[in-house]
Amino acid sequence: MRHTLGVLVENQPGVLSRVAGLFSGRGFNIESLTVAETLEQGVSHITLVTTGDEMIMEQIVKQLNKLVNVIKVIDFREVRFVDRELALIKVKAEASTRAEALRIVDIFRGKVVDVSQNFFTVEVTGDEGKIQAILDLLSQLGIVEVVRTGKVAIARSRKNSTKR
Amino acid sequence: MRHTLGVLVENQPGVLSRVAGLFSGRGFNIESLTVAETLEQGVSHITLVTTGDEMIMEQIVKQLNKLVNVIKVIDFREVRFVDRELALIKVKAEASTRAEALRIVDIFRGKVVDVSQNFFTVEVTGDEGKIQAILDLLSQLGIVEVVRTGKVAIARSRKNSTKR
Repeated sequence: MRHTLGVLVENQPGVLSRVAGLFSGRGFNIESLTVAETLEQGVSHITLVTTGDEMIMEQIVKQLNKLVNVIKVIDFREVRFVDRELALIKVKAEASTRAEALRIVDIFRGKVVDVSQNFFTVEVTGDEGKIQAILDLLSQLGIVEVVRTGKVAIARSRKNSTKR
Repeated sequence: MRHTLGVLVENQPGVLSRVAGLFSGRGFNIESLTVAETLEQGVSHITLVTTGDEMIMEQIVKQLNKLVNVIKVIDFREVRFVDRELALIKVKAEASTRAEALRIVDIFRGKVVDVSQNFFTVEVTGDEGKIQAILDLLSQLGIVEVVRTGKVAIARSRKNSTKR
């Protein structure tokens, strides 16, 4: 089964390696992972997508919670969330296909962020399905390179959430 | 000094942990890291931002190149590149500040991706400066949570690039 986890950590050297090591140690492959700073000084947020057995996953979550430098683990199986990712896609810009490629980019509300004589680079955001759809369409015209951020997730606001 | 690296790796359990370990082993803090699949089956792309001494950085790049499962290292000091990141920002939506918050989101071409009575969540993309600018403005109105992907980078197309 596929799992999305959020992990708040103290930003110390070695934390990321230990978090990733917990998964690889049990043979779990990390499909995507992003880590970046939060608004709080010295605190980073990891979003991690992995696939594996439900029971082993629960053990990993428990062990994550026990790791020094781990502040909080959010198991997105338990909450409703919004997820997005960003992809930079470098596409061939041959005269015969250029207009068609730009049409596809437009439909997916992508932005052209770099152009040269032979290529252009597009920024597109969305959930996994949307990113996959534009990749499928553009790859028929010729994709040179793709760099994806991997998924970030944030819990949806609850209907009756209390004021903070 | 600040460094951005791209690392193409075989997507095997343990690779990420080893790559991250190379940096933490030398006391380098990883500011942001993203890893996700590429178009090629079994190959993932890591973008990594770190700060540290230039000479030690060169040693790390050499060691990265020697790691099993590392296919290629792109040192972005040597190439012109485009970089982007994505942030999901959950903002307080009180009656008195709602219009102002939405105006800011509009100026930065953000998209509202979730709304409730008390909060809304915005997706925004850009380089680091742009993301920091919108965070600074919105934080005056009340940010509840931020999740950032960290930077992804892609080499700019060269002017005289040959046809592929």
